Amino acid sequence: MGEAGGAAAGGPRRAPRYTGVRTFAGLPAAGLEEACDSAHCGAAVVGSPFDTATSWRPGARFAPEAIRSASVLLRPWHPLHALDVFAASGALDAGDVAITPGNAARSAEQIASALSPLCAAGTIPLLLGGDHSVALGELRAHAGVHGALGLVLLDAHADTWEDYYGERLFHGTVIRRAIEEGVLDPGRSLIAGLRGSLYSEADLDEARALGLELVSIEQLQADEPAAFAARVRERIGERPALMGFDIDVIDPSAAPATGTPEVAGLSARKALALLRALAGIRFVGFDLVEVCPPYDAPGQVTSLLAANIAYEMLALAALARRAGA
Amino acid sequence: MGEAGGAAAGGPRRAPRYTGVRTFAGLPAAGLEEACDSAHCGAAVVGSPFDTATSWRPGARFAPEAIRSASVLLRPWHPLHALDVFAASGALDAGDVAITPGNAARSAEQIASALSPLCAAGTIPLLLGGDHSVALGELRAHAGVHGALGLVLLDAHADTWEDYYGERLFHGTVIRRAIEEGVLDPGRSLIAGLRGSLYSEADLDEARALGLELVSIEQLQADEPAAFAARVRERIGERPALMGFDIDVIDPSAAPATGTPEVAGLSARKALALLRALAGIRFVGFDLVEVCPPYDAPGQVTSLLAANIAYEMLALAALARRAGA
Amino acid sequence: MGEAGGAAAGGPRRAPRYTGVRTFAGLPAAGLEEACDSAHCGAAVVGSPFDTATSWRPGARFAPEAIRSASVLLRPWHPLHALDVFAASGALDAGDVAITPGNAARSAEQIASALSPLCAAGTIPLLLGGDHSVALGELRAHAGVHGALGLVLLDAHADTWEDYYGERLFHGTVIRRAIEEGVLDPGRSLIAGLRGSLYSEADLDEARALGLELVSIEQLQADEPAAFAARVRERIGERPALMGFDIDVIDPSAAPATGTPEVAGLSARKALALLRALAGIRFVGFDLVEVCPPYDAPGQVTSLLAANIAYEMLALAALARRAGA
Amino acid sequence: MGEAGGAAAGGPRRAPRYTGVRTFAGLPAAGLEEACDSAHCGAAVVGSPFDTATSWRPGARFAPEAIRSASVLLRPWHPLHALDVFAASGALDAGDVAITPGNAARSAEQIASALSPLCAAGTIPLLLGGDHSVALGELRAHAGVHGALGLVLLDAHADTWEDYYGERLFHGTVIRRAIEEGVLDPGRSLIAGLRGSLYSEADLDEARALGLELVSIEQLQADEPAAFAARVRERIGERPALMGFDIDVIDPSAAPATGTPEVAGLSARKALALLRALAGIRFVGFDLVEVCPPYDAPGQVTSLLAANIAYEMLALAALARRAGA
Amino acid sequence: MGEAGGAAAGGPRRAPRYTGVRTFAGLPAAGLEEACDSAHCGAAVVGSPFDTATSWRPGARFAPEAIRSASVLLRPWHPLHALDVFAASGALDAGDVAITPGNAARSAEQIASALSPLCAAGTIPLLLGGDHSVALGELRAHAGVHGALGLVLLDAHADTWEDYYGERLFHGTVIRRAIEEGVLDPGRSLIAGLRGSLYSEADLDEARALGLELVSIEQLQADEPAAFAARVRERIGERPALMGFDIDVIDPSAAPATGTPEVAGLSARKALALLRALAGIRFVGFDLVEVCPPYDAPGQVTSLLAANIAYEMLALAALARRAGA
Amino acid sequence: MGEAGGAAAGGPRRAPRYTGVRTFAGLPAAGLEEACDSAHCGAAVVGSPFDTATSWRPGARFAPEAIRSASVLLRPWHPLHALDVFAASGALDAGDVAITPGNAARSAEQIASALSPLCAAGTIPLLLGGDHSVALGELRAHAGVHGALGLVLLDAHADTWEDYYGERLFHGTVIRRAIEEGVLDPGRSLIAGLRGSLYSEADLDEARALGLELVSIEQLQADEPAAFAARVRERIGERPALMGFDIDVIDPSAAPATGTPEVAGLSARKALALLRALAGIRFVGFDLVEVCPPYDAPGQVTSLLAANIAYEMLALAALARRAGA
Repeated sequence: MGEAGGAAAGGPRRAPRYTGVRTFAGLPAAGLEEACDSAHCGAAVVGSPFDTATSWRPGARFAPEAIRSASVLLRPWHPLHALDVFAASGALDAGDVAITPGNAARSAEQIASALSPLCAAGTIPLLLGGDHSVALGELRAHAGVHGALGLVLLDAHADTWEDYYGERLFHGTVIRRAIEEGVLDPGRSLIAGLRGSLYSEADLDEARALGLELVSIEQLQADEPAAFAARVRERIGERPALMGFDIDVIDPSAAPATGTPEVAGLSARKALALLRALAGIRFVGFDLVEVCPPYDAPGQVTSLLAANIAYEMLALAALARRAGA
Repeated sequence: MGEAGGAAAGGPRRAPRYTGVRTFAGLPAAGLEEACDSAHCGAAVVGSPFDTATSWRPGARFAPEAIRSASVLLRPWHPLHALDVFAASGALDAGDVAITPGNAARSAEQIASALSPLCAAGTIPLLLGGDHSVALGELRAHAGVHGALGLVLLDAHADTWEDYYGERLFHGTVIRRAIEEGVLDPGRSLIAGLRGSLYSEADLDEARALGLELVSIEQLQADEPAAFAARVRERIGERPALMGFDIDVIDPSAAPATGTPEVAGLSARKALALLRALAGIRFVGFDLVEVCPPYDAPGQVTSLLAANIAYEMLALAALARRAGA
Repeated sequence: MGEAGGAAAGGPRRAPRYTGVRTFAGLPAAGLEEACDSAHCGAAVVGSPFDTATSWRPGARFAPEAIRSASVLLRPWHPLHALDVFAASGALDAGDVAITPGNAARSAEQIASALSPLCAAGTIPLLLGGDHSVALGELRAHAGVHGALGLVLLDAHADTWEDYYGERLFHGTVIRRAIEEGVLDPGRSLIAGLRGSLYSEADLDEARALGLELVSIEQLQADEPAAFAARVRERIGERPALMGFDIDVIDPSAAPATGTPEVAGLSARKALALLRALAGIRFVGFDLVEVCPPYDAPGQVTSLLAANIAYEMLALAALARRAGA
Repeated sequence: MGEAGGAAAGGPRRAPRYTGVRTFAGLPAAGLEEACDSAHCGAAVVGSPFDTATSWRPGARFAPEAIRSASVLLRPWHPLHALDVFAASGALDAGDVAITPGNAARSAEQIASALSPLCAAGTIPLLLGGDHSVALGELRAHAGVHGALGLVLLDAHADTWEDYYGERLFHGTVIRRAIEEGVLDPGRSLIAGLRGSLYSEADLDEARALGLELVSIEQLQADEPAAFAARVRERIGERPALMGFDIDVIDPSAAPATGTPEVAGLSARKALALLRALAGIRFVGFDLVEVCPPYDAPGQVTSLLAANIAYEMLALAALARRAGA
Repeated sequence: MGEAGGAAAGGPRRAPRYTGVRTFAGLPAAGLEEACDSAHCGAAVVGSPFDTATSWRPGARFAPEAIRSASVLLRPWHPLHALDVFAASGALDAGDVAITPGNAARSAEQIASALSPLCAAGTIPLLLGGDHSVALGELRAHAGVHGALGLVLLDAHADTWEDYYGERLFHGTVIRRAIEEGVLDPGRSLIAGLRGSLYSEADLDEARALGLELVSIEQLQADEPAAFAARVRERIGERPALMGFDIDVIDPSAAPATGTPEVAGLSARKALALLRALAGIRFVGFDLVEVCPPYDAPGQVTSLLAANIAYEMLALAALARRAGA
Repeated sequence: MGEAGGAAAGGPRRAPRYTGVRTFAGLPAAGLEEACDSAHCGAAVVGSPFDTATSWRPGARFAPEAIRSASVLLRPWHPLHALDVFAASGALDAGDVAITPGNAARSAEQIASALSPLCAAGTIPLLLGGDHSVALGELRAHAGVHGALGLVLLDAHADTWEDYYGERLFHGTVIRRAIEEGVLDPGRSLIAGLRGSLYSEADLDEARALGLELVSIEQLQADEPAAFAARVRERIGERPALMGFDIDVIDPSAAPATGTPEVAGLSARKALALLRALAGIRFVGFDLVEVCPPYDAPGQVTSLLAANIAYEMLALAALARRAGA
């Protein structure tokens, strides 16, 4: 892009951050084909602006745009990992998947089709939702290459309900669907940050009965990041895994713009510390879901935090590649 | 409702307008069964909070709540029609239809089922959308009693496209679907307020080929309300008709909170004048769609205008009943 | 209410949370008479939308509506208390008291009159303010049944000033007035969370001279919830008590929408922990005041937190009834 | 004020408009005593931040601050009147009256006391409300000097109701109270811009029975400004009169931030034209009420329009003085 | 861009409008070099996100992003001109000029350098500001090819002041600077829509003394679009001209988000009609300035209107090329 | 100011806090000359509304107004320092410096000129930015009296970059410029709260190479306030020092309205504790920068926190004077 600027293109000395068509952190824009050429692309930021499967506030369709907009504040050097995140991850911005609003089943297929070549090529996709239902297509794409994946998910909700008013693919049912389809291995999966009121006493028991390990917000708050990371490593093991982040695991004070907020969540500080502690795990993909921009103005703190979480994910991608090398 | 207040319950002298659980204008809350007893209910305000079929900004699911909230400012006496609107229309608030987000086809059926008994009983429903796709279920309910209906629709868009990314029931296809199903009589229908850029030269020709009469915004702005009303009366005739109002016919300055805004629309003043000029037409139903509250804060001018449009519709309902008596 | 939905009416499988006229958490709407029939009603959510007695930002009159709106996200099962909150508390939504804006004295009488039958019947009222001045009428109603009450109050301010510009019933004077009237027993009362600049050195001494126990924010932050609860139990004893929550005890990052915010308050996490630690105390009433919705858009985090606090109060009501049985 | 800037202090060349403590248009700040010295002060901008007497949205207490803030955009030269408005009117900013929130009766007295010396000295006060109830104290001050005043009022409502829930001094009763007290001469008064639903058929008849002349919005929209001005001149005559402007006469698209908005009002363009047509009438005072800033963000269009209306009023003050000279 | 969608890429049937990295209306992204190849590019949308030279509200640096975001609602067919705007104009999106915040002089040079090759190649640039000072660099680029240009400017202000606090290149001085430099021909220029208070009586006389023709808002409102267009054609003649649009010519109700709003401006309807009437004039460039997005949330009406104005400009570009062919 | 009220003028009993032209906390307004008379003025609040040197979001020019507006909530008595802050500091509000937007170099000179007499007279200035570049002029004024100053700075960024797109005086370069000019003594300076991504690995090394001591956010969060204060005292020593506070050191949840927010910062609680721990250090000046009000609505939490930080600074000023006496 002719006049593209932004942090990834060389810092503050050439052009202001807000100059140019917005790609993630000013990364080069790429077609999916280009993003599959792992010589050029180690990781690909991909949007999936689908929000039909939302039980309260819709609007996550605007999340890829809002996160890209806030990402102009990111700079390449990660001081704690001592890493040039953009160079080390080899990231590009591959645009958005052409999903179908109103049709969750078809959109899942579109996402799976779009990501499959990336997964096959060894490019690590970082999927920006959209609501959490986008994870089903994502998991299908990965499972086509790696078999059923392990999952580390930070989320206020287990998303293992059976259905919503008869709808079986919804943002609150996606984990159950993925297990049923065999694309997610519950025995290698862990969901942390659970909190809030439930529909019935059985909700969490049913999630555990599916084979998942659950970590309550109380436990997550009490543990040091290293202890959490050790638990994750034990659960995930050495095989490929997915890292999922539902922004509603964060406290509404720091992430007001989400579809089904739950009070009393993680601070941004704790969330970043948890992510940084996961360095070295063999993640083959990442997703960041449920950012809902219409509820973020004027300060745009949720999008800003989301951009930083995506940045930490790219750092983890770089470290996973390094570990795998 | 114990402490219910609001304008419909007797004006400002008993309790402030903002007191009590919010029904439309403080009207009594009623179940659908009660609303079908025409001895008690001449008109029923019914919400259909469905917004899956939206091509740009979702959020119309919150419109029934927002319009009810703003409606506390309404008072019973309509000085231009010289009418106690609430008493003369015999209106109740019948709550919301239990639609299914993510499933437009099923929701259309739920709306049709919920409204059919009202239509059969002679109660005039005033449907608060939701996106425009809710009109399909509404038309089915009316057609079950009256056959294919005539329609006066104020709208920036003709909503006669064939499909959206393969989805056939969408807010921009609903008029075509209703004609195909035989629940809308295009020969007795007129859509006014059309404007904005189009997908192709053929868009309006195709709408006309379906048999619809189209009135551009330029013509609508140029005509006096009485001239418009005469044109409507000639088109509609004496048989039952539906009055539809898509809030995007209004200029974004007065109605910013809508799903697919088009610049350069009607003023509130012109819109009210047009509605008032339609007094006496035999409307058997009304709908008001595409109010999208997440984009309305802080002034809430769209919801306030919508509440006033709904009020004018109840006045038209009262006048239609009087004319029919 | 015909199409009523919401969490209290059976979870996500029947109708979306945003369907239907908004009562608190979708609880059945009831008249005050019905709410006095303790066979049907163990607790009654009652709004008192009065905000005349506010020294900075008015707008708390819209709090009952906003809290009801946000409460649709609540689900019945409380995992930490292992309780179906709605069933165990026997809660109904009894609408709003018909207060008189501009007249604090008369409104206090209206509140007292409306709540007295509830208190006499043994129904536990949960009063949603309005500004803090609504507590005077509430305390009168309770004192008519139980005599002077003990009070646990979480609040940034002691509200024991003598007057404001000559006005003696104001949101910052209500605790002093209640003690003077003999409806509040300072010796069984404790106010926690105090912080911020004061009018003079004497402010807190005068509050202590009234017999109140005061806990600074520093102490409250330093103590574990169990230690705080022990201190409360010792202060309150076995006789009936009121639990008050002024939302300004919360940090403005998590509760920006309040009348007189003070920086550096409690997190939502700490506040919920404190409330949960009070299980088993013999509370006969609750109030939640000073939510000011005009300052809450677009994320509505204050109303969301307030709805969760009210939910914790209903849980405490259920546990108080169980303890009393 | 040492570094005071703003338009009134000499244009854009010295310091930016947003520099300095905000007085109206950067006018010199003055005590009320100084403002009574007509050698120095021909007109005084005075705030009365009282909003207790509001039936829907409170918040007008912040209007004087918001209007002062927006007024930095005003420049001295009025091209249509060919007038240096600040020099010709001799205006100062006299700060705010120390009203008493929660007590409309006492506040009316405080306003009357504060303005009386100004009126006696021949300084023209421009009162920035607050809600419309502030006009009672203002009229008392003027009547103490001139006897019962004539009034030109642009307002969506006649404000002649008897009481609100028993409260007799409220923003919707102020015109009736002023007539009853003999401080307003209905025979020399005219209210224009009336619209919206009413409590009963009798509302406007009762207003007319008080002796007022009423002009509907339809009539006001149809007439040219000169015709309206002729009607006003005939009604007012040569004796002293007050000019009142309730911002709700404006359409909510241009003035969303007001306490009780009514749809379909005046455009800013029409309102300015009407004000300009009143040049030469012997106004001895002005008020501008019901701006409610919490509903104005982020564009602040209401405050901006209010600042311009106040500017037109200062121009009318200058022209009234010139005519009287 | 791999998954690019949007209206320009084929309508609603392939992918939702909000899919993909945002270029203007989904037009292909191009480098400036590519945009200079007139075989591929008849018109180039170019952002210049510079807002240092702003006297009141800064923030126009975010306008190119906001206008691109809102432009997804544009469709290719212009029904009144009967034109596929994107095809007929041959437009691309050439990204942003790398301006220097804090340095107006250097930024003007950067803009001139970036646009000069486009102008030389015969590609029509549509410059999205930024504040109005960006027009100086733009005019230099055009003058390098065509000599001093004629200008049609819709603007509330003449922007002919001498300096601001000593700064000579400011958004309110740009027209004077351009005339002084000889890049703007005042004798072929006309500024319309002037209104608002002035610094002194001489302001407009000085602008006229520079040779400019001025049209007041009153005249502009009174004239039919065709009369205005005739006046423009007479003034401009047959030689190359620039069309400038400062969004503050629009009424704040329809365009609240601008740097120095003036009340009582044009409606969107009138503005579009004026633009459409200019079909056939030999415009070699366009600019659209002073959109200030931080003041536009949540409805984003200003950006939406700006996107539509830019669309009308592309239509005029197509018609200018056709006329020139 | 005639009707001036506010907390500094005697508490809540005389007039509401929102009454009167807004000076900081209702302090007396003073010219700079008066503020130099140390018999009358121990500390002077001075605004410097300059925001040209901002790399992302401009708008800090409105910070002095917004902080003054929020400061009405401040009361005189500081319970932890046991101090009447306004009396003990002898503070006045000296208005704003007449800076020049668009010209950072000239503005620095204007700030230096305006503050120099204050510094010479021994009045402690509390400078309200504006962006961080305002510190250069401030440091020049102090250095003229005291020589190169020591600095305690709470900030997310070290602000030691060389230039921005060629601009050498920018908000991210100000500390480097001040060291180069010899007005800041790096050996007596400490910057704490550093976090976020960097342009390169060398960024912090270069800052340290300038002689600065840097404290990361991790260290700052881990240390008790007393430990931090000890470190500061050791670094600063007994000679005069400046205390700087860039609001972006605070977490965006509590301070969303800032120019270049960084996630995961300090809580308000921690920040106040840090400030209070610095009691007794010989501060001769204070600044508070980078509050950006357009991003603060509607809750205004950033301005509110900023007002409280300024209040803590006045308390430190009082304590510094006491210590110096």
